[in-house]
Amino acid sequence: MSKVGFIGLGIMGTPMAGHLIAAGHELFLHSRSGVPGPLTDAGGVACASPKEVAEKADTIILMVPDTPHVEAVLFDESGVAAGISKGKCVVDMSSISPLATKEFAEKLGELGCDYVDAPVSGGEVGAKAGSLTIMCGGTEEAFARVLPLFELMGKNITRVGGVGDGQVCKVANQIIVALNIEAVGEALVFASKAGADPEKVRQALMGGFASSKVLEVHGERMIKRTFDPGFRIELHQKDLGLALSNARQMGVSLPNTATAQELFNSCSANGGAAWDHSGIVRALELMANHEVG
Amino acid sequence: MSKVGFIGLGIMGTPMAGHLIAAGHELFLHSRSGVPGPLTDAGGVACASPKEVAEKADTIILMVPDTPHVEAVLFDESGVAAGISKGKCVVDMSSISPLATKEFAEKLGELGCDYVDAPVSGGEVGAKAGSLTIMCGGTEEAFARVLPLFELMGKNITRVGGVGDGQVCKVANQIIVALNIEAVGEALVFASKAGADPEKVRQALMGGFASSKVLEVHGERMIKRTFDPGFRIELHQKDLGLALSNARQMGVSLPNTATAQELFNSCSANGGAAWDHSGIVRALELMANHEVG
Repeated sequence: MSKVGFIGLGIMGTPMAGHLIAAGHELFLHSRSGVPGPLTDAGGVACASPKEVAEKADTIILMVPDTPHVEAVLFDESGVAAGISKGKCVVDMSSISPLATKEFAEKLGELGCDYVDAPVSGGEVGAKAGSLTIMCGGTEEAFARVLPLFELMGKNITRVGGVGDGQVCKVANQIIVALNIEAVGEALVFASKAGADPEKVRQALMGGFASSKVLEVHGERMIKRTFDPGFRIELHQKDLGLALSNARQMGVSLPNTATAQELFNSCSANGGAAWDHSGIVRALELMANHEVG
Repeated sequence: MSKVGFIGLGIMGTPMAGHLIAAGHELFLHSRSGVPGPLTDAGGVACASPKEVAEKADTIILMVPDTPHVEAVLFDESGVAAGISKGKCVVDMSSISPLATKEFAEKLGELGCDYVDAPVSGGEVGAKAGSLTIMCGGTEEAFARVLPLFELMGKNITRVGGVGDGQVCKVANQIIVALNIEAVGEALVFASKAGADPEKVRQALMGGFASSKVLEVHGERMIKRTFDPGFRIELHQKDLGLALSNARQMGVSLPNTATAQELFNSCSANGGAAWDHSGIVRALELMANHEVG
């Protein structure tokens, strides 16, 4: 069993760290909002700072909201970099900028440390069930070293490539999911305003080239008008923000991702920041002055 | 066995009519480009005009390129309406405007005739194999009457609703397929320019919420650079044209469909009218000055 640090104990991080403790690992914990009692009760050790976590653990896992939080946890005065030493490994499971990830990994590499980016999908349900999808970037050696930890938290674990490629894959995932939802939204608003029954249209399209996980799951939500998350629009806005800012830095045009972001913005303007992302259909409905149904 | 007219004997219509003849139906045939010899050899009767077809057959099937062709076949001086009589049924299997379809059906209704719109997907391969997907609009009675003919040409046959709803469903299908392809294109150009291996990204995304028939089939084409059709961009441009013109008439906004059409236009401008529709990725590649790979 190994000494594992875990920084960021929110809705996702808490159950993930719990799986590691339950498997017998020695956990060193830190979170902006304090360490949850059940984790220390189970044997986890609360630390005063990311620096202290990095001093005590060999592998330091991060699960925080966004790029600036990762940067702060790693490089602030009492951050991970201030406590880490040669041969240790940082594993960032947050969903953040791929380009920033490469910079962070380079700085830690100068200290003799490995870096694996390993963003997840599957949400709170997957975190609790230990069934997250984990998309990893890093050297084969570093990946092999932390794989046993990943296997306690997830099921579908892929090493996509070198450092940053896990984050790239996560962004690609969020682009496709957002645009597939928007596609189903356009099709159902069109069909419904034309007088067709959207559920019959959806049924007719399943199994053909239009079929997708999104047509199945999010299409049904649009028709049944169930917009409880699921995955909140404000979180998808963050992810498309990463897509668009990284695309701009790299010189890539993402025209439909940009439009999807504007439609999410319209949802937020109409009180929908916490709707499930299938609620993007409501922005299209406003534009068409017509509700699917 | 019944007397069936078939107007429009191109790449799709010829094998479809062939299945009806093979099943023992009496076929009355007309096509702008002449009736193919093998169909008359098999027992089909060539007719001089759509009018003559409508005089001789009880059910008149159309399989022509676009809305104006259907209008001409039905309502020109020597068209179907000039020869048809009460109790007969027109079945339009072309992919045309849903709104125009409702007008055509109304005019034929005034002559005491049924109308079923029944556009297909599955292409030349499906037409030859008799495995087309057929999306139908019309009354239950009219649908029941022509279903035995559909079963000779297709496998997945759905009555979506009343007249026009088959065409609405086909347009919805083409919107989703185009936008799902565009989504995979944006994700793969992003991932590739960021330095990740697009095939590893695609593999990692299969099975999750980003999974779709398009990620499977068209994603692979983008990575393997195989842009032979498949389904030609110029045909998808026609279908998105139907989507956008009907949307405008109905008062529906389709922002990403509009952008996808512009990207197809860019493909055509670069010699790609006959590329497979997965070639939309090339328009994104031009914008990013980077080829997926």
